[in-house]
Amino acid sequence: MKEEGLLINKLIENIKKTNAPIVVGLDPMLSYVPEKLVKQAFEEFGETLEGAAEAVWQFNKEIVDKTYDLIPAVKPQIAMYEQFGIPGLAAFKKTVDYCREKGLVVIGDIKRGDIGSTSAAYAAGHLGRVQVGGNTFFPFNEDFVTVNPYMGSDCVNPFAEVCEQEKKGLFILVKTSNPSSGEFQDRLIDGIPLYELAGRKVAEWGENCMGEDYSYIGAVVGATYPEQGKLLRKIMPKAYILVPGYGAQGGKGKDLAHFFNKDGLGAVINSSRGIIAAYKQEKYAKYGAEYFGDASRAAVEDMIADIRGALC
Amino acid sequence: MKEEGLLINKLIENIKKTNAPIVVGLDPMLSYVPEKLVKQAFEEFGETLEGAAEAVWQFNKEIVDKTYDLIPAVKPQIAMYEQFGIPGLAAFKKTVDYCREKGLVVIGDIKRGDIGSTSAAYAAGHLGRVQVGGNTFFPFNEDFVTVNPYMGSDCVNPFAEVCEQEKKGLFILVKTSNPSSGEFQDRLIDGIPLYELAGRKVAEWGENCMGEDYSYIGAVVGATYPEQGKLLRKIMPKAYILVPGYGAQGGKGKDLAHFFNKDGLGAVINSSRGIIAAYKQEKYAKYGAEYFGDASRAAVEDMIADIRGALC
Repeated sequence: MKEEGLLINKLIENIKKTNAPIVVGLDPMLSYVPEKLVKQAFEEFGETLEGAAEAVWQFNKEIVDKTYDLIPAVKPQIAMYEQFGIPGLAAFKKTVDYCREKGLVVIGDIKRGDIGSTSAAYAAGHLGRVQVGGNTFFPFNEDFVTVNPYMGSDCVNPFAEVCEQEKKGLFILVKTSNPSSGEFQDRLIDGIPLYELAGRKVAEWGENCMGEDYSYIGAVVGATYPEQGKLLRKIMPKAYILVPGYGAQGGKGKDLAHFFNKDGLGAVINSSRGIIAAYKQEKYAKYGAEYFGDASRAAVEDMIADIRGALC
Repeated sequence: MKEEGLLINKLIENIKKTNAPIVVGLDPMLSYVPEKLVKQAFEEFGETLEGAAEAVWQFNKEIVDKTYDLIPAVKPQIAMYEQFGIPGLAAFKKTVDYCREKGLVVIGDIKRGDIGSTSAAYAAGHLGRVQVGGNTFFPFNEDFVTVNPYMGSDCVNPFAEVCEQEKKGLFILVKTSNPSSGEFQDRLIDGIPLYELAGRKVAEWGENCMGEDYSYIGAVVGATYPEQGKLLRKIMPKAYILVPGYGAQGGKGKDLAHFFNKDGLGAVINSSRGIIAAYKQEKYAKYGAEYFGDASRAAVEDMIADIRGALC
């Protein structure tokens, strides 16, 4: 069934339009922000959490302005904002709103998950709405969020319910990109690794949550684990896979082909540091700190070429 | 080694002082807040997120004022604040600060966890400090937080490092209280359930993180699973166990004895709804909505008696 307005359909349309199955991870460290921007923010707000948040927001805005026409989606990592407390989270919200205005799909990388009533509160706050007296608010209003499945179905279901209402979507952690992800995720249960079990659950949870060709219940599988990606692609044929770990974490374009389906769809590759702090790399040093946004644009173009090359 | 100022030691001192191994879960739904408080908040801030946050904060404050002398610690569930966006999180922060001022140990129930650099950002924001220019800030400044271990050691380590610096602590999800927690957590790996494997990891992570008698790396084990609690108690003898699920979720005092060590310590039992919304129960209805704080105090006294009874 084709339903109008489903964000998973918009994500795919954006990917087709840009011919770029990528996501820019807006995970700013204060140390990534060029000195000039930091100085301006501190002049206005002092050396405060508000100042840090302003620097991060201006940094994000420039990167989005310089790349939004090339990319389908962004993935702000909320921890990088949460570290600056309330002002940081206000910068997160501003970033989400600005990216949505620019037509980008916004994946809130929040990795939440809790008992039912608590997951329902997270889902309302990040994907849905809350009622206050006679008024309705959409507090953070991301399009997708990431969810940690350790607590099982009744942790995921409240998110899925809000997605159904709001036409939004999830990416559920299955096999994460970090070096120690195997400590639990690779352990065998009846001969099957835990990540595969999680992958099967994602396929099951997503079955009745379909957009045009793909489910709005997707999965997170790290670029750093291409073999596992190949297997999981088969187990969850209808799940969109969000693939972190490209670039700075070590994943390369050629490792990524098997994360995709034969239709050339089914995966979006995230790069964070490699794009947003591109001007600090030797390769893009010619842009200098002043033109950091142009360096990010060049890095996006190179990433797209790398991934298109791998998909040929 | 006895180190001054370790929060795990303070938690235990508080428990001994009150003779009450309990935690009050400050997990307010707007529907728990008596109409009069909601009305006052809306008069001041309108039917807005700010209004909702103010109502929740005033509700918390009254409950803390009426119970702080009886209890060692509180556990605000951040999702209940996050659902009201930035103003909600500001109310969370106000609640944390107020409870600390009252001498309570504050366990931020945040269930975060991510790749190393991202966990480090969460740890800095919730337990530690961030540097902005020449200034240092403690953005949320809880004493303990809960952490989800699905991603393995390099998700937990950055939290543990900040705990070492700041003398704070963690409770790591091992066997959660919700009905579907077994979907992954009960599955057998080499004959051992995943929760037991997680419990062993907690013991290992906590080994070099000792307070006086207990580690500052603790665990979460649901009251709703007393048999598993009994086993995990033995596997993690030095871990403090945070036990949610008492009361509204179905756990009873008599189920809890085996979560404790022979020293009568080693566990703190959380109750949220059963305490904070006590005035809505028939048992405490005589207090009425106006004296909801007194109803909470009575519910705390009853809970303490129930648990002391179980420990005899």
